[in-house]
Amino acid sequence: MKETEVRFLSRPKLKSPIVIEGLPGIGLVGKIAADHLITQTKAKKFCELYSPFFPPQVITDDDGIVRLVKNDFYYFTDKGRSFIIIGGDFQGMSPESQYEISGKILDVLEHFKPKMIYTLGGLGTGKVPKEPKVYAATTSKKLIESHKKFGLTFKGRGGGGIFGASGLILGLGKLRGMDSVCLMGETVGHVVDAKAARILLEKLAKILDLKVDMKDLDKEAKETEKELQKIQKLQEEQAKALQMAVVNSTSDEDVMRYIR
Amino acid sequence: MKETEVRFLSRPKLKSPIVIEGLPGIGLVGKIAADHLITQTKAKKFCELYSPFFPPQVITDDDGIVRLVKNDFYYFTDKGRSFIIIGGDFQGMSPESQYEISGKILDVLEHFKPKMIYTLGGLGTGKVPKEPKVYAATTSKKLIESHKKFGLTFKGRGGGGIFGASGLILGLGKLRGMDSVCLMGETVGHVVDAKAARILLEKLAKILDLKVDMKDLDKEAKETEKELQKIQKLQEEQAKALQMAVVNSTSDEDVMRYIR
Amino acid sequence: MKETEVRFLSRPKLKSPIVIEGLPGIGLVGKIAADHLITQTKAKKFCELYSPFFPPQVITDDDGIVRLVKNDFYYFTDKGRSFIIIGGDFQGMSPESQYEISGKILDVLEHFKPKMIYTLGGLGTGKVPKEPKVYAATTSKKLIESHKKFGLTFKGRGGGGIFGASGLILGLGKLRGMDSVCLMGETVGHVVDAKAARILLEKLAKILDLKVDMKDLDKEAKETEKELQKIQKLQEEQAKALQMAVVNSTSDEDVMRYIR
Amino acid sequence: MKETEVRFLSRPKLKSPIVIEGLPGIGLVGKIAADHLITQTKAKKFCELYSPFFPPQVITDDDGIVRLVKNDFYYFTDKGRSFIIIGGDFQGMSPESQYEISGKILDVLEHFKPKMIYTLGGLGTGKVPKEPKVYAATTSKKLIESHKKFGLTFKGRGGGGIFGASGLILGLGKLRGMDSVCLMGETVGHVVDAKAARILLEKLAKILDLKVDMKDLDKEAKETEKELQKIQKLQEEQAKALQMAVVNSTSDEDVMRYIR
Repeated sequence: MKETEVRFLSRPKLKSPIVIEGLPGIGLVGKIAADHLITQTKAKKFCELYSPFFPPQVITDDDGIVRLVKNDFYYFTDKGRSFIIIGGDFQGMSPESQYEISGKILDVLEHFKPKMIYTLGGLGTGKVPKEPKVYAATTSKKLIESHKKFGLTFKGRGGGGIFGASGLILGLGKLRGMDSVCLMGETVGHVVDAKAARILLEKLAKILDLKVDMKDLDKEAKETEKELQKIQKLQEEQAKALQMAVVNSTSDEDVMRYIR
Repeated sequence: MKETEVRFLSRPKLKSPIVIEGLPGIGLVGKIAADHLITQTKAKKFCELYSPFFPPQVITDDDGIVRLVKNDFYYFTDKGRSFIIIGGDFQGMSPESQYEISGKILDVLEHFKPKMIYTLGGLGTGKVPKEPKVYAATTSKKLIESHKKFGLTFKGRGGGGIFGASGLILGLGKLRGMDSVCLMGETVGHVVDAKAARILLEKLAKILDLKVDMKDLDKEAKETEKELQKIQKLQEEQAKALQMAVVNSTSDEDVMRYIR
Repeated sequence: MKETEVRFLSRPKLKSPIVIEGLPGIGLVGKIAADHLITQTKAKKFCELYSPFFPPQVITDDDGIVRLVKNDFYYFTDKGRSFIIIGGDFQGMSPESQYEISGKILDVLEHFKPKMIYTLGGLGTGKVPKEPKVYAATTSKKLIESHKKFGLTFKGRGGGGIFGASGLILGLGKLRGMDSVCLMGETVGHVVDAKAARILLEKLAKILDLKVDMKDLDKEAKETEKELQKIQKLQEEQAKALQMAVVNSTSDEDVMRYIR
Repeated sequence: MKETEVRFLSRPKLKSPIVIEGLPGIGLVGKIAADHLITQTKAKKFCELYSPFFPPQVITDDDGIVRLVKNDFYYFTDKGRSFIIIGGDFQGMSPESQYEISGKILDVLEHFKPKMIYTLGGLGTGKVPKEPKVYAATTSKKLIESHKKFGLTFKGRGGGGIFGASGLILGLGKLRGMDSVCLMGETVGHVVDAKAARILLEKLAKILDLKVDMKDLDKEAKETEKELQKIQKLQEEQAKALQMAVVNSTSDEDVMRYIR
């Protein structure tokens, strides 16, 4: 596998869907929100995206059955409207793969001529916010106008950047003439922040006029966190275990550094 | 050489072979097991895989004759059954090359329509196990059922990842509809673990109904370890020796860091 | 997006234009000079260059509207002569992308058959210069002769290198038979140096017989610096915030280091 | 420029030439030897190799005229025999580019159907050798036999690796059926070693029955070293100077580390 690959499981007919993206990022805020929405709306997976720019690993479930890491596309309908949700395990590992994978995501979305794209993320401030705000950025002035009434904070970022898929989907989509809004839950960062995810999802639900039961979100977030810690511990042990495993790996790297 | 290249030395006719992969990884457990099996079964090499994503080096034998680093495919037959063993010097150096090389390995295997693939590795726990277990992961529930009787530990990994070829061959193979099982010998890690390799190979021999003489395995592992240390020492000296060797190499890197 | 992409906004007719390049580099000297020249000449943007080798981010303006990071081509005319100015947010992040992007810039320029190319940069010496000099390097002896009268310092670099776009545009352009001169304002480095930019731009204006009002340059440079610090602070917070955000990212890297 | 490019300046007719490669490596031993041989034989350049995997820089001569970094092919004749010498500024910066560039070098050489290839390098031992040996490695037993009489040390490397072009040209050339010998001057490493280069070149001259005046070699090596230090100092200053130069470069990298 040398290129990012998209595999359709089905070809749903969706009329001008509204897209919601929530991949792992700051405080896992966007991912937790998107994953909860997938569960609550019983959204159905129709497409998988694999990439050599994700970590080279499989994930094992509790039974011991493996699958490649990936991004997933789901859809659901509500009050005659179509929605697509994008979730997944990872974002691209190298800077340039971020461009490639966001481009492939837009390729999939373009098939469906989406009405609007919302990307979800966290805005890390380094401080624990008392009342976490929802920050926003968009592709056009018109969208600022139409979203002002929802109590979003557009000001105050002073030219700051938005990194990864949540930013690039806006930027690359804009070049294709696609409208989109990035919503970022204010968070301290450093920790998985289910509270920021909740506030972010409540805001999104209000904007989209969706009913989302929030009561399991905190529990789910806690489970996510626990599972992450378990994996992380295992992987740290693996990392240590690998140190002596491969012939001269460290030395090779040092050598390369100097051959350059 | 810009791409991974496969060179067939011969085209053996193998009917639905069983494949065993053992490349360098945690504690060298998988590699030691596979190398010993190659020796004991007098398996014959039929294919070599070269890649620009292996370290840019040749290996010198005791006489002073060089060869590129590579992965190798061997075959042998036993009781009317065909087997392929995959061994080698290195795995791919970059994350994305892991995907490419595992994909190329599957390309070779697909020619032979393998009945089953076993990938061998180590599971590092950071603790010296009293009675090392053999952990397992598979591509389907059916395979868990058919392998339960061999005393494998499928449970307890809690969604953990399997890195490198031993994982990706399962994950990428699954997308191609290929059945496979990953067997991992429990090991402390950090050190070359011939004991874990022995227990792993005994388990594999039982599963495959193969007779494998284990008596030289410890000796071979010790020699492997000694040789590795010798190479590592040489390479550390080379690394030091290279520090001043190349025009401004270090500065260039620093400069690049800041041009970005 | 897998390749660097060039988007023309218009196709101006320019007769043998003189090109001025000023992308971010040492002390931001070249960028400040080029940006000021764009403002003062009311140059008009006609082309944008996007690349997956720029950082994977969008930049938000004060209103909250995003755009991808990019390089830009402007043009203006003066006394019957045509000029192109190249500015932008970033240079390529990886060494090889520097070659690719400089090559794409030359592809655009070749359309217009430029008479001459001037690349602008800083020459960091580690010392605060009393009277900053303007250093120069060129593609031919003839150009040294024709530029001597402008008080440039061609001597004293003793075979030193010029890194990034300002150097590669000369080197790659030379292979295409294009004439060019690199002008470097002497600067301590480490800090944004509007003074060096001013001296550099004054020299360029003299060479090109252009009238450029310098009075806002210091003010603009100060604003640039303030904005950079604001963004940098925000991004440092984001960086911290991201530390715990993504599943096992750090461990993955460590693991990869040893799989190699 | 996305690919390594070869530019022929002329197309000399060479009958089964003997090739000598000496690119920068450990102690600059191979480069010093090859450069001295180029000077002494008045070899003529006929081919240049450019690559985006060399550092993204131009080199300025004392006059202030720039050129891209590159590798060069020279030829000369002696007693009716043809010789090609390969020298240059750098080797490829990334591991995989080492494979690509060595492959391109072999592409050029294959045109001429070379009789033999000698690659020159240093073997760093970390100790100052009293009487530096010349170590050797080859592609076949036959070549060991035919070279034994020259007092080379083939034994004692115990499976060690040879990194970079000097190794890969042997390894990749062997796959194309080309005969070659790698000669390595014993050196402490860390420092530019003209003495090792001299002993290496004397050995090569003996093997090839060439007369080479050695008297300027030490002087040349000293000048090389001085120049390197000058460039290195300049580049260190540039590196420092660049630290604050580019918008958020450091933070971006940190951010990317965590997005992964």
